[in-house]
Amino acid sequence: MLKVGYIGLGLMGKPIARNILKAGFPLVVHNRSREKVEELVKEGAIPAFSPAEVASQVDVVFTNLPDSPDVEQIVLGENGILQGGKSGLIFVDNSTIKPGMARHIGKLLQDKGILALDAPVSGGDIGAINGTLTIMVGGPVEAVNLVLPIFKVIGKTITHIGECGTGQIAKAANQIMVAAQMVAMGELMIFAQKAGADPVKVIEAIRGGAAQCWTLDVKPPRLFSGNRQPGFKASMQSKDLNIIIETAKEYGIPLPSCAIDNQLYQSMLQNNMGDLDNSAIISVLETLSNEKFRTQSVGS
Amino acid sequence: MLKVGYIGLGLMGKPIARNILKAGFPLVVHNRSREKVEELVKEGAIPAFSPAEVASQVDVVFTNLPDSPDVEQIVLGENGILQGGKSGLIFVDNSTIKPGMARHIGKLLQDKGILALDAPVSGGDIGAINGTLTIMVGGPVEAVNLVLPIFKVIGKTITHIGECGTGQIAKAANQIMVAAQMVAMGELMIFAQKAGADPVKVIEAIRGGAAQCWTLDVKPPRLFSGNRQPGFKASMQSKDLNIIIETAKEYGIPLPSCAIDNQLYQSMLQNNMGDLDNSAIISVLETLSNEKFRTQSVGS
Repeated sequence: MLKVGYIGLGLMGKPIARNILKAGFPLVVHNRSREKVEELVKEGAIPAFSPAEVASQVDVVFTNLPDSPDVEQIVLGENGILQGGKSGLIFVDNSTIKPGMARHIGKLLQDKGILALDAPVSGGDIGAINGTLTIMVGGPVEAVNLVLPIFKVIGKTITHIGECGTGQIAKAANQIMVAAQMVAMGELMIFAQKAGADPVKVIEAIRGGAAQCWTLDVKPPRLFSGNRQPGFKASMQSKDLNIIIETAKEYGIPLPSCAIDNQLYQSMLQNNMGDLDNSAIISVLETLSNEKFRTQSVGS
Repeated sequence: MLKVGYIGLGLMGKPIARNILKAGFPLVVHNRSREKVEELVKEGAIPAFSPAEVASQVDVVFTNLPDSPDVEQIVLGENGILQGGKSGLIFVDNSTIKPGMARHIGKLLQDKGILALDAPVSGGDIGAINGTLTIMVGGPVEAVNLVLPIFKVIGKTITHIGECGTGQIAKAANQIMVAAQMVAMGELMIFAQKAGADPVKVIEAIRGGAAQCWTLDVKPPRLFSGNRQPGFKASMQSKDLNIIIETAKEYGIPLPSCAIDNQLYQSMLQNNMGDLDNSAIISVLETLSNEKFRTQSVGS
């Protein structure tokens, strides 16, 4: 059975690592804050004290970190995965980072005989806990096939897109649509309220038609009840939009609508709302419209 | 049984009128081009030669017309519904027009004892044919209750939003989301292709996750096969966006993302693409990116 390492035990990483452990894979874990390591050690994981130490004793090492520089540091930095990993190791990154960085890291690892997969996920902490994530994979097919038994315990939809970096491109594409829906939902709810229609009735009317989406299924009840807590943090949505805009610039792709969404999320950060849910983008539209979105009694 | 009139036998109006007729309601029809009248007369409808003539002999008169000025003319113009209709008549408009115009018409009809419902629909010609439309209704509840047996033969989801005009506001809200999804789909498919990921694989990967929507379920296979024919015409999407932006201005609601979508659809019209499907907005993104979206062999 494959011996697995997991580095980065945050909101997503910890439940993913736990599912790998529960499925019976021997698991070595590392995290900056040690309480999370201890938690998984109590459940049977083996602790390590650096990325190199994890990489030196496993067949497959996963990372799950906030942003591109974090992954760069953990892989290429001192006591990093590149330093500790032997030829034949497979590196799998569950973080959402720049496609260009994923390719850069993949190339350097390959030179040392380590196969790299970028495997960002979608589905939130609920999907991570339930093992029902969507996993978008870029990298060599032989590595995908070897890691598949592990992917199957953490995700439901696993798609191999293409070469190294294409998993991150698929995740960026995903986030173009998610951000567009979040902003449109905020706009249409403020529009409905200020123009005199009950937003609860409007959502009820439109959610089964051509506007149907996961966003309209899941987020309005939370906003109606006044709940703007994450879920998926606006700061992370903003980070992902920055990745998209930077990547689009690199390839020469004007994205007029996504660029506006990026600016609106930047406004959330400027107003210290980065820790709210990504659906709380409605706050920016409230400010623009000078219209406070009212808590609604659903079913009235 | 209610005697029904239907004025405007276009792509949507004809199949809706046919379903009313099939359900056994006596039906009087009128349309500018007479072939469509003749078609329904062969199936049992009674022909009329002006809106006033329809209105004078029915309990409920429907209209289904392209834009606000058309409805204004048919209701308030010479030989119009206001002229022919008696007190107690119910007027139901299935067109998508400005909420302000719906309220204006409703007020003038009410002064003559005619109850008005704005009842725009969503679901396309397929929904009209199958009687599965989403109907968003604004106007007096007593009129809604009287017309409900007819609504039930033409639609599946019937929601009474509130007073006169709120049906149109709900439809506008619907179109904010639909346009956002169409533009985002175009952006993400061009982004994926130009950044080197197979758009077929990307759509396959993301359509079951947080980006899930009717748009991603239905439109990509058509675009992959090179089919940009309607469906729902870009010129109608553009008209609806104009309604939204004008209404938003009236109420003081900045809609930054919808405004961009409006501009992009305006570009389609400028490039003589108004008769293409609303998903053909990808054409504008092709031009911006100088990247021709390739026909894809699905399943490769």
